[in-house]
Amino acid sequence: MEFKVNSKELEKLLGKIIPAVPTRTPMPILENFLFEVKDGLLTIYATDLEISLKSSLNIVTDENVKLVVPARLLNDIVRSLKDTTIHFKLTANKKINLTTDTGKYTIGYLDPEEFPEIPSIGTEGNTKDINEVVINGMELKEAFDKCSFAMSKEEMRPAMMGTLFEFGEEGLRFVATDGHRLVNICKKNIKPNFNQQYVVPERAVSVLSKVLDEKEVKMHLTKSYISFKLNDIELISRLIAQKYPDYASVIPLENEFLMKVNAKEIHESIKRMMLFSTSSTRRVKFSIKKETVDISAEDLDIGASGEEKVPCNYNGDDLDIGFNSAYVNDILNHISSEEEITFKLHSPTKAVIIEPVEKKENQDLLMLLMPVRLNT
Amino acid sequence: MEFKVNSKELEKLLGKIIPAVPTRTPMPILENFLFEVKDGLLTIYATDLEISLKSSLNIVTDENVKLVVPARLLNDIVRSLKDTTIHFKLTANKKINLTTDTGKYTIGYLDPEEFPEIPSIGTEGNTKDINEVVINGMELKEAFDKCSFAMSKEEMRPAMMGTLFEFGEEGLRFVATDGHRLVNICKKNIKPNFNQQYVVPERAVSVLSKVLDEKEVKMHLTKSYISFKLNDIELISRLIAQKYPDYASVIPLENEFLMKVNAKEIHESIKRMMLFSTSSTRRVKFSIKKETVDISAEDLDIGASGEEKVPCNYNGDDLDIGFNSAYVNDILNHISSEEEITFKLHSPTKAVIIEPVEKKENQDLLMLLMPVRLNT
Repeated sequence: MEFKVNSKELEKLLGKIIPAVPTRTPMPILENFLFEVKDGLLTIYATDLEISLKSSLNIVTDENVKLVVPARLLNDIVRSLKDTTIHFKLTANKKINLTTDTGKYTIGYLDPEEFPEIPSIGTEGNTKDINEVVINGMELKEAFDKCSFAMSKEEMRPAMMGTLFEFGEEGLRFVATDGHRLVNICKKNIKPNFNQQYVVPERAVSVLSKVLDEKEVKMHLTKSYISFKLNDIELISRLIAQKYPDYASVIPLENEFLMKVNAKEIHESIKRMMLFSTSSTRRVKFSIKKETVDISAEDLDIGASGEEKVPCNYNGDDLDIGFNSAYVNDILNHISSEEEITFKLHSPTKAVIIEPVEKKENQDLLMLLMPVRLNT
Repeated sequence: MEFKVNSKELEKLLGKIIPAVPTRTPMPILENFLFEVKDGLLTIYATDLEISLKSSLNIVTDENVKLVVPARLLNDIVRSLKDTTIHFKLTANKKINLTTDTGKYTIGYLDPEEFPEIPSIGTEGNTKDINEVVINGMELKEAFDKCSFAMSKEEMRPAMMGTLFEFGEEGLRFVATDGHRLVNICKKNIKPNFNQQYVVPERAVSVLSKVLDEKEVKMHLTKSYISFKLNDIELISRLIAQKYPDYASVIPLENEFLMKVNAKEIHESIKRMMLFSTSSTRRVKFSIKKETVDISAEDLDIGASGEEKVPCNYNGDDLDIGFNSAYVNDILNHISSEEEITFKLHSPTKAVIIEPVEKKENQDLLMLLMPVRLNT
């Protein structure tokens, strides 16, 4: 069994698949690629059991074979080669010889039986329970960029460790929350013909974010799996089999006090205040008046404090409210590309809504932040 | 006591001094700057007891004062401010108020008595035991760049943890070695009027490397200290009070076999072979013949191996010799900007000399590498 492949083409292919290879795993077999050569098509798979990636390349060969090869070693070798032809040849003693003009490399391989099965969607013939939606890659990436930071890292509530995909009449809505902050972004130009919620794990979101571009992405959804087909890559992820919390009930409707501020100005100020907020509470205080918001923080441990005035436009009663400065910073990191933002407030103990002043066409974006007590 | 300073000027100044502030220290006082205001000059010092940095800035004030301020906090605050005037004001309760147009920040300060004394050279009036040498900043930087990797990290032999500065008739020679490899670089355009060896600690070399530019550097040397005066910065370092090993006796003179190779080609090959060399020995084998050198490595743990042919021009008997691939890579990292290099060899057990084929004017550069046994 032998075949030839261009080093740069293979490098590109491996680079797309290697994000699915886990860096630390109790199952060493997952640190390998599955190579499948079938009818002149080389398909490479990797999985961490939660997500899997696959991509293919045409090669010239007469035989079909499946084998399992060390992912990082092969990737490192191929990346370090210049543009050349690599000649793969399987030898009797479970070795692969890779030969180029100037070098000869030998690596071991394993039998394909040891590799976990890769799920597939829609290839079993039964496609009636599969939902399909198409979205532009950059739109999906923007949604992930805006909401992924808010996913929970705590294993207590598994659903909150993922991002909610909610398909409905309004469009495709993405929600992420850890109970302290929440992001809710709705793409209204997507018109699904079904109503359904799916919870996509963090790793699918983060791996996909790295490979998305302006091309179309085809999503297929079953009860247990979601697949994303881009160009020449397919990512399949398990769904989190837990109901997502009722996010809508958390979003206050009667926050009647509006504070409009320049996003960059308040963000710069928050970044400085993080230097002063006590490391245990990270608390920052907003004292909001008609035309200015005083932002202040105090580090009792080192006896340092800071206070800044940021111009604002506020229509409510004077209000003092506290936040975790790191959470405010997280939110502003993901919204400060906007010119102006609005804080919608009600009282020092009620969730605050943060939104861009200028709404984008076909998109609703809402961020929510829980306040912290000031007098503790 | 108060004074004003431009935020960007202060940012530049603090940025120059902060490299001397230790990141981890059992003496928290060293995590501070010493501020000295004297006759309209603000001088800022930092030290880790081994090296110290100082730099100054003119300010408008009538009073003189010395105080100790938290280095990283102040640096972070100043860096985060836009271009503005900072108004420093000392308050009664050991606080400094920093006021700008939009913000007010308070940090604590300490008395100057708690800060260790900063050594100085040549200011005590007695200058007869001080040697002075001037060198171009880029030449000094090049010497450091070429030899710093070879300094030892083992505390057994303190002298080898530094870089030797040897002043003599040939010029200024820099030597660094850890017993496995050695770099010897001589700047022949420096004409010192004295013969002397000094051992400069690693931290002085690494901190200085970051601030050197094409400007002149004035070095002052006493028995215990070396100072480097650049532009507006002065770095003073303790010298290592240990005799440097007799490096000259290690450099073989009768290595009569010369192998000329393209530096980049052999470097690329070594980088690939590092993927295959067993992690415990990291051994790579050179099989040198008239026109090619076969470079090979084998990882017995994972059953992988590699072998490449690199063209060379060799005038000796066929020779097999082993090296630590990481050490070869280190050397090539620091010499591969050269077009061609020469390996000077004698036998599989004798130190190998690696030199650029084209010598630079006014500079001798020699690297030395100890081989490792092949048959163990």
